[in-house]
Amino acid sequence: MSKYPPIYYADYLQLESLLNSQKPKSTEYGYKAHDEMLFIIVHQAYELWFKQILHEVDSVNTMFRDDVVDEKSIGIAVSRLHRVTEIQKLLIEQLRVLETMTPLDFLEFRDFLIPASGFQSFQFRLIENKLGLSDEKRIQYNNVDYLNTLEESHRKIILETVNNPSLFELVEKWLERTPFLNSQSFNFWQSYKEAVERMLEHDTKIIMENATLTEKKREFQLRNIELNRENFEALFDEAKHNELVKEGRRHLSNRSMLAAIFINLYRDEPILHLPFMFLNTLVEMDELFTEWRYRHALMVQRMIGTKIGTGGSSGHQYLMSTVDKHRVFTDLFNLPTFLIPRSELPKLPEELIRELSFNFSNR
Amino acid sequence: MSKYPPIYYADYLQLESLLNSQKPKSTEYGYKAHDEMLFIIVHQAYELWFKQILHEVDSVNTMFRDDVVDEKSIGIAVSRLHRVTEIQKLLIEQLRVLETMTPLDFLEFRDFLIPASGFQSFQFRLIENKLGLSDEKRIQYNNVDYLNTLEESHRKIILETVNNPSLFELVEKWLERTPFLNSQSFNFWQSYKEAVERMLEHDTKIIMENATLTEKKREFQLRNIELNRENFEALFDEAKHNELVKEGRRHLSNRSMLAAIFINLYRDEPILHLPFMFLNTLVEMDELFTEWRYRHALMVQRMIGTKIGTGGSSGHQYLMSTVDKHRVFTDLFNLPTFLIPRSELPKLPEELIRELSFNFSNR
Amino acid sequence: MSKYPPIYYADYLQLESLLNSQKPKSTEYGYKAHDEMLFIIVHQAYELWFKQILHEVDSVNTMFRDDVVDEKSIGIAVSRLHRVTEIQKLLIEQLRVLETMTPLDFLEFRDFLIPASGFQSFQFRLIENKLGLSDEKRIQYNNVDYLNTLEESHRKIILETVNNPSLFELVEKWLERTPFLNSQSFNFWQSYKEAVERMLEHDTKIIMENATLTEKKREFQLRNIELNRENFEALFDEAKHNELVKEGRRHLSNRSMLAAIFINLYRDEPILHLPFMFLNTLVEMDELFTEWRYRHALMVQRMIGTKIGTGGSSGHQYLMSTVDKHRVFTDLFNLPTFLIPRSELPKLPEELIRELSFNFSNR
Amino acid sequence: MSKYPPIYYADYLQLESLLNSQKPKSTEYGYKAHDEMLFIIVHQAYELWFKQILHEVDSVNTMFRDDVVDEKSIGIAVSRLHRVTEIQKLLIEQLRVLETMTPLDFLEFRDFLIPASGFQSFQFRLIENKLGLSDEKRIQYNNVDYLNTLEESHRKIILETVNNPSLFELVEKWLERTPFLNSQSFNFWQSYKEAVERMLEHDTKIIMENATLTEKKREFQLRNIELNRENFEALFDEAKHNELVKEGRRHLSNRSMLAAIFINLYRDEPILHLPFMFLNTLVEMDELFTEWRYRHALMVQRMIGTKIGTGGSSGHQYLMSTVDKHRVFTDLFNLPTFLIPRSELPKLPEELIRELSFNFSNR
Repeated sequence: MSKYPPIYYADYLQLESLLNSQKPKSTEYGYKAHDEMLFIIVHQAYELWFKQILHEVDSVNTMFRDDVVDEKSIGIAVSRLHRVTEIQKLLIEQLRVLETMTPLDFLEFRDFLIPASGFQSFQFRLIENKLGLSDEKRIQYNNVDYLNTLEESHRKIILETVNNPSLFELVEKWLERTPFLNSQSFNFWQSYKEAVERMLEHDTKIIMENATLTEKKREFQLRNIELNRENFEALFDEAKHNELVKEGRRHLSNRSMLAAIFINLYRDEPILHLPFMFLNTLVEMDELFTEWRYRHALMVQRMIGTKIGTGGSSGHQYLMSTVDKHRVFTDLFNLPTFLIPRSELPKLPEELIRELSFNFSNR
Repeated sequence: MSKYPPIYYADYLQLESLLNSQKPKSTEYGYKAHDEMLFIIVHQAYELWFKQILHEVDSVNTMFRDDVVDEKSIGIAVSRLHRVTEIQKLLIEQLRVLETMTPLDFLEFRDFLIPASGFQSFQFRLIENKLGLSDEKRIQYNNVDYLNTLEESHRKIILETVNNPSLFELVEKWLERTPFLNSQSFNFWQSYKEAVERMLEHDTKIIMENATLTEKKREFQLRNIELNRENFEALFDEAKHNELVKEGRRHLSNRSMLAAIFINLYRDEPILHLPFMFLNTLVEMDELFTEWRYRHALMVQRMIGTKIGTGGSSGHQYLMSTVDKHRVFTDLFNLPTFLIPRSELPKLPEELIRELSFNFSNR
Repeated sequence: MSKYPPIYYADYLQLESLLNSQKPKSTEYGYKAHDEMLFIIVHQAYELWFKQILHEVDSVNTMFRDDVVDEKSIGIAVSRLHRVTEIQKLLIEQLRVLETMTPLDFLEFRDFLIPASGFQSFQFRLIENKLGLSDEKRIQYNNVDYLNTLEESHRKIILETVNNPSLFELVEKWLERTPFLNSQSFNFWQSYKEAVERMLEHDTKIIMENATLTEKKREFQLRNIELNRENFEALFDEAKHNELVKEGRRHLSNRSMLAAIFINLYRDEPILHLPFMFLNTLVEMDELFTEWRYRHALMVQRMIGTKIGTGGSSGHQYLMSTVDKHRVFTDLFNLPTFLIPRSELPKLPEELIRELSFNFSNR
Repeated sequence: MSKYPPIYYADYLQLESLLNSQKPKSTEYGYKAHDEMLFIIVHQAYELWFKQILHEVDSVNTMFRDDVVDEKSIGIAVSRLHRVTEIQKLLIEQLRVLETMTPLDFLEFRDFLIPASGFQSFQFRLIENKLGLSDEKRIQYNNVDYLNTLEESHRKIILETVNNPSLFELVEKWLERTPFLNSQSFNFWQSYKEAVERMLEHDTKIIMENATLTEKKREFQLRNIELNRENFEALFDEAKHNELVKEGRRHLSNRSMLAAIFINLYRDEPILHLPFMFLNTLVEMDELFTEWRYRHALMVQRMIGTKIGTGGSSGHQYLMSTVDKHRVFTDLFNLPTFLIPRSELPKLPEELIRELSFNFSNR
């Protein structure tokens, strides 16, 4: 029983305005293009879900703006970003519904819509910005800045986000603040470096002693180890790392990379478990956006072919180029490059293990 | 290039009204219940898709109101109902998104919504009516007719559908009009009956001659054959069939059942291929609504438990009872009961086979 | 580079035996039934996944047999049961592949398979047993105990599981051991009971004071509160609870129910977060098995109709009856019945909150 | 009741060999790597499904080797390739199960498996070959021909497929045989060409007359029309088309492209409906393999990072390069480039329409 005034389902959901927001252009122009309704509703469903994603991302960003992010917040952030991933899976599945429209059916109303395009979805731009897609990383479409395709009011909303730190920046700062990496009893940097060195030397030795290898194969494999070592060196050497950042080949700061590796390697310690799940969910979310972009680009190509031909840049080509380039948490995605087997892990000192546990467990 | 005035994405999709239609009650009452937004958007997405389903079902119903449904129409009907099934799969997946809300989070705003409930979704009622859920079959909820829970305007919309034939009725009539069942050269009824008889006798003989069976098992299996024979007899005897219809155990008329069996058995003949796909899609659509009802009822139980206890009827119990009872094309779903193996099929006469083919193939 | 002998993909996966394990009966008997291969491979894929589910459930059961289950183990258990749920989603999707076979195609080889049936999948029985489906809860099929349909060797494997505690029993014990419920500074039972009492009284008062209610509606709502109160009383009174357990209406012990409620209500405290996720995953796994059973039963009905008729029990009817009855963690599923809004939650004393946190956070 | 000997579920499915085919290397070497079982079973499930896909593709290829493919066969081919697409969706979903394994868990047994790799899945190579991936289109991996990584017996199986026409070649020939394109009363080539010409001229005129366009935009759009025209010209001019084929930019013969366009444009005519569905299913199948390759490559990157670094080619880079390049029915996928709106379609003469219909409908 409730002390609040009774409400009616249709009023609560504002069905009056919701269900009167479908205005097919073909109807307006006196044509019958049955499938335009589907086209509208699919895109409206996308925009509803984008609003929900923004709701979740905004709430997470707000939590991470504090100087100290408490444990509860991380648990909540994991739940909310996990929800985003469930929505993303739905967005991907939703393409299968749109694909029940054939290219020939699309042709019946396509001309009416010019130049409207998903490129103008300001909510999707907001999501990208709030996650941390920087303006430098953005691919331009026919040399047109996406802002120029938007109406003034939408442009304004987007420009306002520029002043707020993105999830990428907030996570980077949060990682940089991770304690435990360096204490009197333990220097993670140093221990990890030594473990990596041991591993690489061990691998080299096995190759050198393997009598069955042809000279060519041996060389190939030694070269691989060398490349691997270079990779690690660019991690261990902050200056080199910063250079890679400047070149756009790495993105997170050196210290936050280190913290992310630490969290991944020692994720089984109680206090690190939720942070590990958090990083993992960020990667999953990023990967699902990538997957969505790819499937979306594929669908567009299937729907309209390559009308503009080989010379000009087509919508499809633009979309395909964003698939990989518009990722945000690439460094976390590539982190496995720097993981080493559990058996090679530097042991943590007892004192540190206790700090990473619950009060209750240690009493 | 287009001769139509240029349009803007956000205007085309009416984003202004769409994205301003989320009014959380918790916000209105000054509480913070983060998850109410999800609750609203999930239900709005459902209502958008319901509108699309109505768009497709309406268009199919319109096509089938003609006395002659031409071949093109059947192809189109298959595509559109197939689209409905793709939407239904999405509706089912969408429950996984809602399930990211925990019962405790729901408690934070549940009281604000009383007595609004999905029971009041007039679009869902419309879908059920247009498919052919008759008022007699409807389960009542706490002895309340669903119409009484609706506002006048919505009640009116629903009552108007009663005057129009439902998809069930239209399909029944269309099946009854099927030619081919009886011509000079071929009497399907008779041939099929004889084939069934041969099959049952053959099965009986095998059981009688099988020396390894215990007496008890032999009896059990003979009884099964007997029950099977009774089933067929109620099909072959129109009076018996009509009685089952009266009792609500069968729904389609005798002649349309026969036509449906014919189409299923000879589906490989060119002219029957699309009608077969059409019947198949009806069953798939019905099954997916059943699946959706089941999953929805399960989700509601998980969300609110069985608050009202063992005595009163709870929302969950009502929902569960509709799962099976609110099906429409049950007879088509149960049709396999009457199928016989291809090897036992009565051969069609050459003349009929030619009629069922394309002009081109026979010239 | 590796010090282990090189291996070949096909050998590692034992493809020689795997890909030679499809022996269609129709081929053996000289018929062409194209779809039998699909039938075999779908079922083999099911059995492979069942093996994987057993691998995960076994490992979790082993961890929970210890008197103290440490925090790492709970994290690992969550991951592994989460994996089971991802497999279950696949098992459900897989039905869509089998449904591409039409009933008529199935008829072409169905007779060759008698009396083999999924009822004889000993791995699925093992899963049910290891989760905790007790012999009393099992629905019998045509009065036949499932063990009698199995070969000696499989029966033996299953009977061995009886001696080992099931996941249900292990979770029950683990919940019973939960500390925190009763300390010098805090008695959860008492505080929770008082909060419930306040909530029920509050609701009664609102109903009594609501002038707009008809007498009939007022009575109805007061009756609901009464039923709700009875529900709670059966929880607070251990004797009553035990009686419900004896009647098979509740399953967990009184103390473990209480612990589960505590964990749900205070899940945001760091030490309770993983236990909460663990309980949640158990419910999700149970729900997905329920969903699978339902979809499977529906598919069987669609494939074979109701051949045996109205008198005898059909395979389909048996399957449908197991859907709800073969659940294991029903009490956890119904737990929301006993949740109260966060705002009504008894506050935990500072001392307890500290115990539930990390050492690091409190230093 | 059946005259065939009774069979037992476990024997029918060869569970003895199936469930004893999992031999984790970690167990052999005395390590505990819990997740290796998952790794094995996921890959075995893939191989089972590959076998099923081969079963379907082989059967379709066999049907299309006849000089005349009758209407029934096309219906059957559609069903079977549709089944392949349902399997493919499952293969894609299945990656989500594998992704429950973290990179760190994979590290625990990865070294044991070297150099085994999915690159050696001879069944997947067979699928690619039978669909029509030519040796010239194949991307090489580290300059190694895939055949060299296979054992003699598998290499032999693959080389045998080379002698049989692929689905691509069979479909091409079947399209080339399409009648209707040229009769006394109708020349599709000519009518279609004229319609395209009218469309392009119409578009040009609109651009020229549009006073609101800036000079730059006008030029841009005229250039687009020009590119579009060139595209069409390369279609209408067989010599140009053959040149594009030689350059690997188009793949189907000129005549079969034309037939495919005809079928797409007039798909509503009864005799063309199934051929249209067939072409559509080919594209869907191709697209789903593309999607699978992309998701698979992404998963591999997430699992192992980019271990080899920027210099050498990594497994991930190889996989990504195959995504687009290993497509087979690219021309069908790009067909929408050449579609024109229904309203612009050349009308078919009555006589032809009759030929495309059923005998029954015209009597």
